[in-house]
Amino acid sequence: MSKTKKIAVILSGCGVFDGAEIHEATLTLYAIARKGFSYEIFAPDINQHHVINHLTGKEMKEERNVLVEAARIARGNIQELSHYKAAEFDGLIFPGGFGVAKNLSDWAAKGPDSTILPGVESAILETVAAGKPLAALCIAPVLLAKILKGVKITIGDDVATTDAVTAAGANHVRATHGEIVVDKKYKTITSPCYMLNATIDQIGESADKVVGKMIEMIDEG
Amino acid sequence: MSKTKKIAVILSGCGVFDGAEIHEATLTLYAIARKGFSYEIFAPDINQHHVINHLTGKEMKEERNVLVEAARIARGNIQELSHYKAAEFDGLIFPGGFGVAKNLSDWAAKGPDSTILPGVESAILETVAAGKPLAALCIAPVLLAKILKGVKITIGDDVATTDAVTAAGANHVRATHGEIVVDKKYKTITSPCYMLNATIDQIGESADKVVGKMIEMIDEG
Repeated sequence: MSKTKKIAVILSGCGVFDGAEIHEATLTLYAIARKGFSYEIFAPDINQHHVINHLTGKEMKEERNVLVEAARIARGNIQELSHYKAAEFDGLIFPGGFGVAKNLSDWAAKGPDSTILPGVESAILETVAAGKPLAALCIAPVLLAKILKGVKITIGDDVATTDAVTAAGANHVRATHGEIVVDKKYKTITSPCYMLNATIDQIGESADKVVGKMIEMIDEG
Repeated sequence: MSKTKKIAVILSGCGVFDGAEIHEATLTLYAIARKGFSYEIFAPDINQHHVINHLTGKEMKEERNVLVEAARIARGNIQELSHYKAAEFDGLIFPGGFGVAKNLSDWAAKGPDSTILPGVESAILETVAAGKPLAALCIAPVLLAKILKGVKITIGDDVATTDAVTAAGANHVRATHGEIVVDKKYKTITSPCYMLNATIDQIGESADKVVGKMIEMIDEG
């Protein structure tokens, strides 16, 4: 394993209810760094679907930009999504949060009939075409379900959600805390994280397993 | 060590340039949970000093509330600062981020002549009076410098900042990555974290050491 190996991370904002889930995003970056890899962070330059007051759960009359808010998690070190090139990375990870289902797609409103942001779809297709591993945490596997026909994923154990990803064309596998599901053909890795009623240490354990499996797949080539 | 032991964490917003540093906050919660302790999160219900676009570094013409934004890191599980009672916790931790120097105090503008938000000052004084350990990461030790006469702290190795905390009355000790500084009289623990040019795995290491030391001090009574 060389220190020069690099993982791309795509964020969907900053905050579980309208953006990227902060613990999943941070603990993914932490797992990458702890294993001696480097990372670069990307997000689309679009307005959020909406802004949620995370104290009350109510919508706020504000507009926020996904890239600008994701920059909070990235400490400013972030690039617009179109700069992502699969050729420059060894793997790609999508942390979860409702931003995946509201900003990177309209899954929250349309479920199996949703459409995926074109820049996100092309990033996924390009990564798979390059034969590089691709991971998705929490709700983010819905992106894979929509784009990769018959992909084997987990989205946890909630029946309504597992039915929806199955309707979208995925091969769903139930999984619990700290478990990962691998699709060898597409080289995808998924883990339910906060799709379950999890604690932050369980998120850290899952992020660590996802990144560990990704490194194993990178080493296997 | 009993699972019922509980650490309070006080946040100053959500984002390094105008609020709580997200990695320090998340990795502090992670360290607490991994060691089998629980946590509760607090923040003051006040407007942020300002809002910084974390992509450009420029000020935005917006108002945001510290408690509402900190709720993003807390996933909604947060209380207004005045609900913090030292008697209900085994220790208290302040992660860093400019929010400490802009929202919890006006240190960013006034340095050694700054004043501390009354609710923050009383939380610190109450914790020390109760003989419970209190930790501060990154820039957060400026709060201790102002409130606890002669307290031994570290704020890293930047000369201007170390001079300023010395002028504020602290006994400053230089420290580097992963190092902690303990004041036995006040039972404080400090670590420089992102006051140094650190990587996220170094932040995780420091948070882990800080929480580990706090647990040791709790067990010693």
